[in-house]
Amino acid sequence: MTEPAAPVKLDLAGDVAELTRALCDIPSVSGDELLIADSIQEALQAYPHLEVIRDGNCVIARTNLGRAERVVIAGHIDTVPIADNLPTWLSPDGTMLHGRGTVDMKGGVAVALALAAQVEAPSRDITYVFYDCEEVEATRNGLGRLSRTRPELLQADFAVLGEPTSAVVEGGCQGTMRIEVETTGTAAHSARSWMGSNAIHKAGAVLDILNEYQAREIEVDGLVYREGLNAVGISGGIAGNVIPDRCTVLVNYRFAPDKTLDEAEAHLRSLFGEYAVKVTDASPAARPGLNAPVAAEFVRAVGGTPGPKFGWTDVALFSTLGIPAVNFGPGNPSLAHKDDEQCPVSEIAACLSALRRWLTA
Amino acid sequence: MTEPAAPVKLDLAGDVAELTRALCDIPSVSGDELLIADSIQEALQAYPHLEVIRDGNCVIARTNLGRAERVVIAGHIDTVPIADNLPTWLSPDGTMLHGRGTVDMKGGVAVALALAAQVEAPSRDITYVFYDCEEVEATRNGLGRLSRTRPELLQADFAVLGEPTSAVVEGGCQGTMRIEVETTGTAAHSARSWMGSNAIHKAGAVLDILNEYQAREIEVDGLVYREGLNAVGISGGIAGNVIPDRCTVLVNYRFAPDKTLDEAEAHLRSLFGEYAVKVTDASPAARPGLNAPVAAEFVRAVGGTPGPKFGWTDVALFSTLGIPAVNFGPGNPSLAHKDDEQCPVSEIAACLSALRRWLTA
Repeated sequence: MTEPAAPVKLDLAGDVAELTRALCDIPSVSGDELLIADSIQEALQAYPHLEVIRDGNCVIARTNLGRAERVVIAGHIDTVPIADNLPTWLSPDGTMLHGRGTVDMKGGVAVALALAAQVEAPSRDITYVFYDCEEVEATRNGLGRLSRTRPELLQADFAVLGEPTSAVVEGGCQGTMRIEVETTGTAAHSARSWMGSNAIHKAGAVLDILNEYQAREIEVDGLVYREGLNAVGISGGIAGNVIPDRCTVLVNYRFAPDKTLDEAEAHLRSLFGEYAVKVTDASPAARPGLNAPVAAEFVRAVGGTPGPKFGWTDVALFSTLGIPAVNFGPGNPSLAHKDDEQCPVSEIAACLSALRRWLTA
Repeated sequence: MTEPAAPVKLDLAGDVAELTRALCDIPSVSGDELLIADSIQEALQAYPHLEVIRDGNCVIARTNLGRAERVVIAGHIDTVPIADNLPTWLSPDGTMLHGRGTVDMKGGVAVALALAAQVEAPSRDITYVFYDCEEVEATRNGLGRLSRTRPELLQADFAVLGEPTSAVVEGGCQGTMRIEVETTGTAAHSARSWMGSNAIHKAGAVLDILNEYQAREIEVDGLVYREGLNAVGISGGIAGNVIPDRCTVLVNYRFAPDKTLDEAEAHLRSLFGEYAVKVTDASPAARPGLNAPVAAEFVRAVGGTPGPKFGWTDVALFSTLGIPAVNFGPGNPSLAHKDDEQCPVSEIAACLSALRRWLTA
């Protein structure tokens, strides 16, 4: 066993883009967050206005000012695997920060850390949550663990997740469900194919359903969500001379937050009712919740026009806890997980000042 | 290295069903034919009217009587892997021989061995060919090797292959060609599927072509061949949250002997011209050749109504050597390679007496 590495000194009071770089340059691929969690914990403990709690590789810091409202500001500290894109580098003109984590989501984590250190007396009590293992299977997710083991730590009237949104408010998130649609036939030698029944040929009708499907755009709480129904995998075949008796199409449904998981499944079963359908995994959608007064106030304070979140984020977890939640963070989400992940420095600063405006209003 | 096993004594003059059992009970999965080849060679060498030649695990025996015609009688001595179905067993009423190789094709081999031993002065000179590795890739096929290295050994006016035909003459064989048909698209996150283009969905049109295809029945030299065009494999998909940019359908075309390989390929390219098409493997068809006088005489002598051969056999190899060839052997070809492979004892005897009738007429 090797000695744990000493925490990296993080300057929470300085430039937030520099803080983002420093956080990115501590490699923290999911499962390997010990050092970054230690470093965050040590930096936050320097501020007496914060109560700091450590739970596994989650770090929680909160103000206890007796305010009428409490909000959560949260971000995950892990990244997807490094693709030869660390340490970070700045573009020659200094406007773009490149490297793993710059978008997803060390920028949002840096903004939260800067707020925690710099806003000593916010207008609302704040619970900052820095958590591990967001980029891997849901059972390992640090925020999920806290919600099961210490739900009182997450109690709040509203939550802001610093996931990349190009610094505009994105409300709620799509749900996702994956199903296997299986066709069956009868195996036979392909030289006497008329003695069998071809399961791959039958999958043509499944693909027809997908090709004919009109994905809907659905307005929920004032935001328009665009759905999608897609084959993301297909497999069938026994041998090059055998009529296949089985073909499986893996279908991914991304659905708007007007539907529960049960409703999403019922929709898929009505589409593919003719076939054997098995749900392989699912995560619920989250309503944007922008109708809640606390959310509306947030939107007014940070400015801009809110949009819907495509893709799934942990706002859905807050949603299931009954806490309205939005995504708001620096970086273009389309660049998350890409080898050329990069974030405009200006967006990091913009997010920090918008949130500071809200918390000091 | 272990000592080679001593040859098994084979009684070529006794009961042909017992000989079939003895041959089956020498396991000889492709690549493991040394012992059965040794046993066959030793048994044949006991007959002074035969010239016996050994070539690898092929054994050739021939009469040299200066007859006007020479015919080949051939059979492969390997089997597909054993499925807990050896040693052989007889049905309680003694009519059915069960086990690996009973159909494909130790029965046909036993018939040829019995003829070789018992018909000392046939009306036509005969070259008996017992060869290895028919059940595996064509490059290992013993008959193919002989045709390349010692083609003079195969020279003949006509050939009978003892492949299972339920003891009726089956002429020629279908050709087979496999192609990969590939569709391409653009990868994207499945939460924003409209930014990509789904290659699996596009494969629906490929399956439509297969579903709409009307396989033809084609008469060649008086026999009706039924063609087939089938997907035998399909694969596509990158990850559960990615719109796939590639999908491959493996298609097997079984075609009548009115077409060359080039014509078969041109037909497939005309059907799937819109897609990337790659031929992965192909074997030519063989015309039944029953119009040749030597073949017509054979059919008259053995009796019955000839049918077409579905599936591919080594008659196609004789066909490419310019030698008319037919399949004629005991056992139902639909049971070849099956775990419950089994052959009526009566068919083994029937094939032997039919061929003896022909060779002693």
